[in-house]
Amino acid sequence: MQILISPSGFKESLEPYLAADCIETGILRVCPDAIIRKAPLVDGGEGFARALVEATGGVLRHLTVTGPTRLPVESHYGIFYNGGRKTAVVEMAAAAGLGLVPRDTRNPCITTTYGVGELMVAALDEGARQILVGCGDSGTSDGGAGMLQALGARLLDYHGNELEPAGGGHALLELADIDLSGLHRRLREVEIEVPCNWKNVLCGPNGVARVYGPQKGASPEQVELLAAALDTYASVVGRELGYDVSRAPGSGASGGLGTALILLGAKLRPRYEAITEYFSFDGLFEGCQLVFTAEGAIDFQTPHGKIPAEIAMRAKKHGLPVIALVGTVGLNAGDNYRIGIDAFSSILQCPTTLETATRDAERLLIDGAESAMRMVMVGRSLKGV
Amino acid sequence: MQILISPSGFKESLEPYLAADCIETGILRVCPDAIIRKAPLVDGGEGFARALVEATGGVLRHLTVTGPTRLPVESHYGIFYNGGRKTAVVEMAAAAGLGLVPRDTRNPCITTTYGVGELMVAALDEGARQILVGCGDSGTSDGGAGMLQALGARLLDYHGNELEPAGGGHALLELADIDLSGLHRRLREVEIEVPCNWKNVLCGPNGVARVYGPQKGASPEQVELLAAALDTYASVVGRELGYDVSRAPGSGASGGLGTALILLGAKLRPRYEAITEYFSFDGLFEGCQLVFTAEGAIDFQTPHGKIPAEIAMRAKKHGLPVIALVGTVGLNAGDNYRIGIDAFSSILQCPTTLETATRDAERLLIDGAESAMRMVMVGRSLKGV
Repeated sequence: MQILISPSGFKESLEPYLAADCIETGILRVCPDAIIRKAPLVDGGEGFARALVEATGGVLRHLTVTGPTRLPVESHYGIFYNGGRKTAVVEMAAAAGLGLVPRDTRNPCITTTYGVGELMVAALDEGARQILVGCGDSGTSDGGAGMLQALGARLLDYHGNELEPAGGGHALLELADIDLSGLHRRLREVEIEVPCNWKNVLCGPNGVARVYGPQKGASPEQVELLAAALDTYASVVGRELGYDVSRAPGSGASGGLGTALILLGAKLRPRYEAITEYFSFDGLFEGCQLVFTAEGAIDFQTPHGKIPAEIAMRAKKHGLPVIALVGTVGLNAGDNYRIGIDAFSSILQCPTTLETATRDAERLLIDGAESAMRMVMVGRSLKGV
Repeated sequence: MQILISPSGFKESLEPYLAADCIETGILRVCPDAIIRKAPLVDGGEGFARALVEATGGVLRHLTVTGPTRLPVESHYGIFYNGGRKTAVVEMAAAAGLGLVPRDTRNPCITTTYGVGELMVAALDEGARQILVGCGDSGTSDGGAGMLQALGARLLDYHGNELEPAGGGHALLELADIDLSGLHRRLREVEIEVPCNWKNVLCGPNGVARVYGPQKGASPEQVELLAAALDTYASVVGRELGYDVSRAPGSGASGGLGTALILLGAKLRPRYEAITEYFSFDGLFEGCQLVFTAEGAIDFQTPHGKIPAEIAMRAKKHGLPVIALVGTVGLNAGDNYRIGIDAFSSILQCPTTLETATRDAERLLIDGAESAMRMVMVGRSLKGV
């Protein structure tokens, strides 16, 4: 039997590649002869680089960069060949993710995407011809200003003085001009593609400061300060581009990083369209008889673009059954039966706290996969019925 | 497809018959044409009468009796025909169970089995030819003295004065003699059979006062008082019987109720041997293709005589697969794979407290059964593989 394992991660406990390993372990306990194909998936956020490298046979490069709070962090990007072209996958969350900002010091006015630019410099220096920048799970709201600085751009105030490097979003209040003449020279030769949430915009009432600022730790005053700073930033960037970027699709992705990427000529794409292509979904299903997926939670929102639903809809084109293993079965989870998820189950084993469950996530997912596979084998033994 | 549903109850949340209904509902959501056979099971404790009546097509009689704290309680016993013989099933927990004693007033020195005797009187009065007395989940330690009094026995002190009726275990310190001449006249005509825990004895270091007293609410002093009272009781009963009953198998069942039943000529039986017979296990499996069982928890103790294990071992003689749905998956639950449980799963859906899970037990069990059945159907669809 050939089984495709294509899970998302379990936020703050299991990255997708580890989730896939756990499910594999559980299945093999029951069917040691099963042929397993693993394709861990992420939406561009945490774990994206590693997952894509796993799926494409690429490699991870490890390096230290400037973290979101300006302290050095261990980070990484991936390299793989995409139709013969050397491609780097940079995950913004690996250098500027919310998970890298200590809970008690979260303030998106001062966090920076400088490290994201450093990852891109490393990718450019090693000769990448294409760079994919995954957005999601950001801990910043600097509009990508830090990234631009790391890549060689100069951000200037009204006196022509350069803004402090990696100064965070609030420094953009002083922004008057951007000098792109010093940008990394290879940027002109590469194609940058950005899978991101198309609905995130930089400014206005649904702008990134107001929608995401609070969950990144901003007080109401800080939200308004950030919104004003990003308005200033939008007008300067708009002048460079020759058009208003403030409501462009994806301009607000990852705390406005999308805007800086637009400035660099990147192509922003709706994330699931892009992810589907990167992970070669359709090829993945060939020869499989059964699909396992997983995510932290399943509920009425899942059918609207969450990973298990995207997997299920594609599996159904191949007539394959899909089982989803989750941490939490939420409100109206049964809606998912209609979009191609044949069965789902929580991996929890007893009344417990989220903290304890998170700590035990590996064991629970292994056991949960075993349990599901055992039920499947019970059904398979009913052949004659 | 024909499916046998044979669950235990979920302690303090779902009685076995309700658990069976929930599992049926969940299965029918997936397979509306499935033929369901329900045989809810209990070990003699809470829910025993109702379960046996459900399994045998009998009826429940409802009546008010003296509860363990001497306040009236709504109670019941069952009537069914056992090989043509009118049989009553009396569940001691329905008149003297721990669940009937308010948590903050638990004191096994004063609780009484008087109501158990009242249930037996009603069964005798309606012409039962056999009485099964289910033991388990008791809230008493009166050695069955209250039951004897309700049936017409007189318990006398050294002055020949009758002890207070329903006086509880501590009153037995004054016991000097038992006068059985006034016993219900039909007691001589009936056969009394008692499925009970064979290991429970009345007296000594492993006697019922010391082993179960504390969990019924006794302080260390009360435990010793009870132990002394039951020693006195044992010597008086032993004199009546002509042999020492203090360590007889089952003499300690349900706070020593076993001893009083021995005095009445009852046949005490190891509970699983008896239960297996009452619920006609073997006949139950005929024509079925799949078995569902359930219990509050599954762990390393389950193989040692818990209901899911008993079901599984018998199902395996018929070559049938068994799925167990549980609240808690405990330590080394995997041991159960070796004794015939093919798959098990917790019905929990999110991190939660025991209280919340208990409150939601019906919904969780229905959804859990649906989830398991969906996994089974996934496996069944893999026929060609």
